[in-house]
Amino acid sequence: MAGETTDTTTPIDRSRRPFKLDEASAILSRTPATLDALLRGLPDGWIAATEGGTTWSPFDVVGHLIHGEQTDWVPRAKIILEHGEARPFDKFNRLAQFTESAGRTLPELLDTFAALRRKSLDELASLHLTAADLDRRGRHPELGVVSLRQLLSTWVAHDLDHVVQISRVLARQYSDEVGPWRAYLRIISGNQG
Amino acid sequence: MAGETTDTTTPIDRSRRPFKLDEASAILSRTPATLDALLRGLPDGWIAATEGGTTWSPFDVVGHLIHGEQTDWVPRAKIILEHGEARPFDKFNRLAQFTESAGRTLPELLDTFAALRRKSLDELASLHLTAADLDRRGRHPELGVVSLRQLLSTWVAHDLDHVVQISRVLARQYSDEVGPWRAYLRIISGNQG
Repeated sequence: MAGETTDTTTPIDRSRRPFKLDEASAILSRTPATLDALLRGLPDGWIAATEGGTTWSPFDVVGHLIHGEQTDWVPRAKIILEHGEARPFDKFNRLAQFTESAGRTLPELLDTFAALRRKSLDELASLHLTAADLDRRGRHPELGVVSLRQLLSTWVAHDLDHVVQISRVLARQYSDEVGPWRAYLRIISGNQG
Repeated sequence: MAGETTDTTTPIDRSRRPFKLDEASAILSRTPATLDALLRGLPDGWIAATEGGTTWSPFDVVGHLIHGEQTDWVPRAKIILEHGEARPFDKFNRLAQFTESAGRTLPELLDTFAALRRKSLDELASLHLTAADLDRRGRHPELGVVSLRQLLSTWVAHDLDHVVQISRVLARQYSDEVGPWRAYLRIISGNQG
């Protein structure tokens, strides 16, 4: 009967992937080179561009990613493995880059980020995480109980979120210059596409 | 009087830049290497990922960018310079990549895009565009009268829009895996940030 027929043509859902450590690492390992290719050597006006007000420039975002390597991802993974839910994560300082990046150049920040990311991924590999480890839980100071799998998935999405942010900051510099094409450019119109 | 005081502390507006050909070329020349750094060698599941339905994968987007080099940006610039508003642009086929990329691999597409982009920028440089040239006008089949400056500004924003799209498609694969962090990730929540 029709209801019992196995539908072999049903497409795989390509809009979601389950977390896999090697697939996550494949993204994480590429972020420094991606930002390097996009930003190194660009005219200063692009590097200092913002979306107005207190929004961040590409320079600010790279500093934020450096601070994340130093205090967020691997340090929090170790807290989960060593302390579980007993010790909440330290709060993350979202504004640290405004003091820590002062007086530095973008090429310096890109080099620092690349070196720290390599070190983070080496440390991650050295933990030899099992599926059981990924289920282990810690405590976020605001979000409550979270798993190691969720932390590492967030690391990946957070990288990509900031690639988006940098690209958006740059594109919106031409919000007026594109003229009537504005309607077609989701990055400028703000429409979800 | 206060109303006549010149305010020398007014910050420069860093949220908009006027179009400059060298600054635009600086972005355009970096897009192939940016996508190469982000995508080459990634596991196939990432390359074929979509946002569901008929949305595009990273593989589809690179094919779309190739078609743009072949039929959109420099060809339209030449139509403006040669025919002005008298000859409307040819319509752009937004679905061309679904036939043109068939049977090809992502590394092939990345190589093709990089080669075509180099050729496009060489052609652009060979036009020795003046400020007066940038004011010249053509006719878009749907948007009406547009300037060469607007076309070239749109080329830049369009590149960055697709860097955003690819990053978003990848990040949203982990929409469920990030758990409670979803609230903090604009790329997944869809919030403007």
